[in-house]
Amino acid sequence: MINQYLKTENSFLVIAGPCSIESEAQMRELLSSDGFPKVVRGGLYKMRTRPDSFQGMREQGTQLVHKLQQEQGFEFVTEISDPRQIEMLDPITSIYQVGTRNMYNYELLKELASIGKPVMLKRGFSATVKEWLGAAEYLAELGEENIILCERGIRTFESSLRNTLDLGSVIYLKEHTKFKVIVDPSHAMGDARYVRSASLASLAAGADGILIEVHPEPRNALSDAQQALNIDEFQSLQRELSAMGQVLGKEVL
Amino acid sequence: MINQYLKTENSFLVIAGPCSIESEAQMRELLSSDGFPKVVRGGLYKMRTRPDSFQGMREQGTQLVHKLQQEQGFEFVTEISDPRQIEMLDPITSIYQVGTRNMYNYELLKELASIGKPVMLKRGFSATVKEWLGAAEYLAELGEENIILCERGIRTFESSLRNTLDLGSVIYLKEHTKFKVIVDPSHAMGDARYVRSASLASLAAGADGILIEVHPEPRNALSDAQQALNIDEFQSLQRELSAMGQVLGKEVL
Amino acid sequence: MINQYLKTENSFLVIAGPCSIESEAQMRELLSSDGFPKVVRGGLYKMRTRPDSFQGMREQGTQLVHKLQQEQGFEFVTEISDPRQIEMLDPITSIYQVGTRNMYNYELLKELASIGKPVMLKRGFSATVKEWLGAAEYLAELGEENIILCERGIRTFESSLRNTLDLGSVIYLKEHTKFKVIVDPSHAMGDARYVRSASLASLAAGADGILIEVHPEPRNALSDAQQALNIDEFQSLQRELSAMGQVLGKEVL
Amino acid sequence: MINQYLKTENSFLVIAGPCSIESEAQMRELLSSDGFPKVVRGGLYKMRTRPDSFQGMREQGTQLVHKLQQEQGFEFVTEISDPRQIEMLDPITSIYQVGTRNMYNYELLKELASIGKPVMLKRGFSATVKEWLGAAEYLAELGEENIILCERGIRTFESSLRNTLDLGSVIYLKEHTKFKVIVDPSHAMGDARYVRSASLASLAAGADGILIEVHPEPRNALSDAQQALNIDEFQSLQRELSAMGQVLGKEVL
Repeated sequence: MINQYLKTENSFLVIAGPCSIESEAQMRELLSSDGFPKVVRGGLYKMRTRPDSFQGMREQGTQLVHKLQQEQGFEFVTEISDPRQIEMLDPITSIYQVGTRNMYNYELLKELASIGKPVMLKRGFSATVKEWLGAAEYLAELGEENIILCERGIRTFESSLRNTLDLGSVIYLKEHTKFKVIVDPSHAMGDARYVRSASLASLAAGADGILIEVHPEPRNALSDAQQALNIDEFQSLQRELSAMGQVLGKEVL
Repeated sequence: MINQYLKTENSFLVIAGPCSIESEAQMRELLSSDGFPKVVRGGLYKMRTRPDSFQGMREQGTQLVHKLQQEQGFEFVTEISDPRQIEMLDPITSIYQVGTRNMYNYELLKELASIGKPVMLKRGFSATVKEWLGAAEYLAELGEENIILCERGIRTFESSLRNTLDLGSVIYLKEHTKFKVIVDPSHAMGDARYVRSASLASLAAGADGILIEVHPEPRNALSDAQQALNIDEFQSLQRELSAMGQVLGKEVL
Repeated sequence: MINQYLKTENSFLVIAGPCSIESEAQMRELLSSDGFPKVVRGGLYKMRTRPDSFQGMREQGTQLVHKLQQEQGFEFVTEISDPRQIEMLDPITSIYQVGTRNMYNYELLKELASIGKPVMLKRGFSATVKEWLGAAEYLAELGEENIILCERGIRTFESSLRNTLDLGSVIYLKEHTKFKVIVDPSHAMGDARYVRSASLASLAAGADGILIEVHPEPRNALSDAQQALNIDEFQSLQRELSAMGQVLGKEVL
Repeated sequence: MINQYLKTENSFLVIAGPCSIESEAQMRELLSSDGFPKVVRGGLYKMRTRPDSFQGMREQGTQLVHKLQQEQGFEFVTEISDPRQIEMLDPITSIYQVGTRNMYNYELLKELASIGKPVMLKRGFSATVKEWLGAAEYLAELGEENIILCERGIRTFESSLRNTLDLGSVIYLKEHTKFKVIVDPSHAMGDARYVRSASLASLAAGADGILIEVHPEPRNALSDAQQALNIDEFQSLQRELSAMGQVLGKEVL
């Protein structure tokens, strides 16, 4: 599905899953829910602001994902924060996600460029569009069609939300580049109550997809508990996106 | 039309017109174009960053608007920047617009509160949502239903666009307050090429309307020439807004 | 003293006093303290974020200042926020201060330019240096030597202090313009504990003075209680500034 | 010298050298100039915004530094951007510098913590003080006295200088933590003309030192040519720092 998506226009890809892969039960509940996407996100190696926070399931989690993929056949998107994780992640990963705090990690980008898989390059939360495009040049070897830019909110003086979603930059990039541009409304808003509206606005602004956090029990999530949608909320959002996509001539995947 | 709009939910008001009222010919061309809104915006007293820039038609312009209103019956929204302009503006104005550089001008706000007409309070380009709501308290006497908040982009480190459109704050305000919240995509984006997408995104995000710059010949505008839509672009946008509004259950006025 | 200061280089002017003029007792205690400056600041018409905060002693305060000036002969700097305050303020004011929220209030600036007294133009807390210099052009009629720029901290993502003191802009302005540039460390830091270091750094950076809040009993101040120095702290700072001024070839007034 | 500095208060350390180590001739000219510091900075592995910029002398440079150290006995501070550089850098490095774009690179920090040498942690150019201190916790194993924080300017809306030097945060950190805090005026200002004033202000603000770019021929530097002092300018600055240090009770090393 990802390869086809990367080659076509006018489709809107929904990538959903938990912030962190936490347990087999968590993942089974998500994957079995009606209409859950075939492109799944989930963190295995977490970068946390403080060293005593949950750092991810790591190797154990990769084995879990591998087992579930063989059973259920989904494609997987996950963050890589160190080139030495490639060996573990490569068998299960369809798109490498470079997180906001690694956008300037050019050593990592160079290494990913040499592997050849699509890379989703999150915008540094204080990166200008120009710097973001500069970082994408480190991936040029992959070809334009394998580079996905992901807007996830920027840091500004405003603090009523976690970040300031910069849809203007999405609009600008769709006008001036050929990259796919998707939006992460969960990190941008930082609160599940606002994710629906931000997702609809992303579609209307011309984004090529969203990367969204969904958890069977958001309150019990080990990371970013406040911003994950539950399964019902996610299904409802999917329906709204599809309806709006029809008016805009975009197929929601 | 404005009074009814202020009392109902689920409608999306389009306020359109030139940045500055420049001439009778300019206004007649706009007003006669097919489907032009019945709520018109236009600047008479301009606040310009440098003293040698065009400062608006002022008194002469108010007379022009008055004449055109009597002929054609539209409602008028215009910026007031000094309480001493009230005498000239009051006969022609349905909504007083307080500009971004006057959001903290509490003396002006207090005076407007005492008049009783609806006020559209633009967000200071570096005002937090909290400060914006603080400024709205200076208008409390008008009643919640007569206070319209207008998001027009904020100042951030990003400079590829004129401002950073903060739709997150629109979403936040619709969740937590009862004010109408509209968006000014023209100033937020600063470039006509991006105004369509920003307008659609505003509707999808849950805004109650847009305030948009339209000019019969944008290239020759005396102020903000780069960001005005021409009449064709505006009519096309109106059609798209209406179609999307139907999916979202919003009537586009 | 002010006229002489404005005409000479290599002097560093300390303007001190309370955020708000609150009572005769408050002012007498300050003015009688050893080494208190002969250029006094104090707010009479306050602009407060919320309408229910203390709005200043207003007319009553101007009479108090007038009486104290006649007895004790100090020069007075105060904020003006509306041209209609000129009549009250003119007899007691040596320098009109335009506050951070009025830097873009061009109508006010034009009116002050026509009076002829020196104006201290505070930087808008989100104004670029370019916009600040643009606002100063509205005062050009006064002559360069009567325009004082005052850096008071800008708004950024950092929130551990009230504002981000931008001494880089002070350095830039001293290199590229002829204006006097002074610093308001009290508003920049927002906390009396940090005001001493910020004042010394301002002198070392090349500023032409400071505007500083001092209160006989900071804890009981009606506005900005947290950021005022008490009299002892202020006297100690004065001594340090003088010592450092000698090394730098600047006379501290 | 570094070990003693880290254990004492009231000294101000000047670390100087080129942005990039470029050639033996360049380094010999610097090292032989009168009064050049015994703690030298110089980049070997450069992180550049675009992949086609000069990426540093790398291995070849480490050999050059090693040779010069054996002859002349200076201590060396250099940036590390990937744990795999440790092997090359360890023999020549007294303080590992973590650059602004790696402040959030927690994998790198953990690895440096395990080596035991002092680390100079540059502030991410958009990191809050809180996040900066969070990153320092990843180094806690080294002990407070071996962690040096380096303020190098933050990203704000202001663009007349390369960055906004945030001396307020230096003042805050000296009040609330025990870390050494130094300033990089070269990157903060981005222009050699402003470096002198920024350095003096850093000393006056209470910083524990500066990290400063000096080049025998700034115009011909392969990176950051605009911001390096020449040798004369640097010597003159050293004299001014020493004089001011005496007034402030700080010994300038």
